[in-house]
Amino acid sequence: VTRYKLLVEYDGAGFVGWQRQTNGPSVQQALEDAIAGFSGEFVRVYGAGRTDAGVHAAGQVAHFDLEKATDGKTVANALNAHLRPLAVAVLGAEAVGDDFHARTSARQRHYLYRMVNRRAAPALARGRAWHVQVELDADLMHQAAQVLVGRHDFTSFRASLCQAASPVKTLTELSVARHGEEILVTARARSFLHHQVRNMVGTLKLVGEGKWSSDDLAAALAARDRAKGGPTAPAHGLCLMDVGYESIP
Amino acid sequence: VTRYKLLVEYDGAGFVGWQRQTNGPSVQQALEDAIAGFSGEFVRVYGAGRTDAGVHAAGQVAHFDLEKATDGKTVANALNAHLRPLAVAVLGAEAVGDDFHARTSARQRHYLYRMVNRRAAPALARGRAWHVQVELDADLMHQAAQVLVGRHDFTSFRASLCQAASPVKTLTELSVARHGEEILVTARARSFLHHQVRNMVGTLKLVGEGKWSSDDLAAALAARDRAKGGPTAPAHGLCLMDVGYESIP
Repeated sequence: VTRYKLLVEYDGAGFVGWQRQTNGPSVQQALEDAIAGFSGEFVRVYGAGRTDAGVHAAGQVAHFDLEKATDGKTVANALNAHLRPLAVAVLGAEAVGDDFHARTSARQRHYLYRMVNRRAAPALARGRAWHVQVELDADLMHQAAQVLVGRHDFTSFRASLCQAASPVKTLTELSVARHGEEILVTARARSFLHHQVRNMVGTLKLVGEGKWSSDDLAAALAARDRAKGGPTAPAHGLCLMDVGYESIP
Repeated sequence: VTRYKLLVEYDGAGFVGWQRQTNGPSVQQALEDAIAGFSGEFVRVYGAGRTDAGVHAAGQVAHFDLEKATDGKTVANALNAHLRPLAVAVLGAEAVGDDFHARTSARQRHYLYRMVNRRAAPALARGRAWHVQVELDADLMHQAAQVLVGRHDFTSFRASLCQAASPVKTLTELSVARHGEEILVTARARSFLHHQVRNMVGTLKLVGEGKWSSDDLAAALAARDRAKGGPTAPAHGLCLMDVGYESIP
């Protein structure tokens, strides 16, 4: 048995999310079906980030165990051949030790949230960015975001369905920058709570339009109450960019 | 009568191109229909670049004349309301003098051609980039591209159906740069021949894979014969980024 690590890109639009569900196609199932199609083996694929329905990935990481004797390059090409009709691409595959686990070995997750901030609806970024018509002050958003950086109880930004054992997480980066009509929010942490990035972005939007101050954001964080946090930003603006692991010495 | 200048973004996928055709929906028709829906006036819209079927635009410029008394902001909002189901967005509209012509007043056109250079098909850039599997040397492509910069007879890179009076054009920039797995080609000129950018990109790909040298490219240019140029790169990798005009003093 060999464990393979996969680097995966997908457009979240056509999926119910990363995780297998009974109500529609998932990325996990697409990969498991492709592995079965190539090897005849019915395996479980584990992902680093269980992205929600509609969330995209440029660098999701996953792993699975295969009995068949083969190699990474063959695995990647065979999976892509089976995935071809779907908006899922395996960018790379490599054999790793059996102590590697895509989710629990991950040391850093990097998400990008994209907004188009203008009157006109996006034509080119349609389905890839949140369309916000009211003018946002990205500098104010960035300043306020620094309130959230560090080790905190993020209950105010946690989905009610979140299954994490603890609401305490260490946010290593939350930066906001304007690029013309786009506003990009970068979030990095070892791990995130369910909906945490989307809830932080939805709240930062309130700061950007002048409805909330940095102090309001700090008070919401301190309240440890989801009802005190802002709304959840839509899924289609979010993309899992990459997942970091400790380099094997 | 007031002349309005429009800044327009569109996803070329659903269109037969900029120009009205009998065989399907065009961007020109979408804008003319939206103007009629808003004002009751049936006008002709003139575009700076007559983009082919499948070619995208982030900054197409167009103009039209309207009898109705209104203003640029109202025009943009009304057109976007009528365009909403389509992947066309009016980013801005402003009243201009009646000597302004989107096509003939243009002083510079800037196109971006995007390639995804890797084994796996693009999932996120699907329909927005040319998927090239063979590894390309972007530095060699950039060096060779400089052969084409300047004032030349571009017959070797001109579509047989091109209606331009002269095949002589001045290419002010043709640069190639790799960004990870993407290769971006930037082309700037006062104007281009029909298919010129796509034909130059298709030929530069031959250089990138080592089939052609810079000298081969120079010989193709000197031949003034379309049969000596390389193949036409696909439309969906191309995007009209912006159009420059002389600033009104």
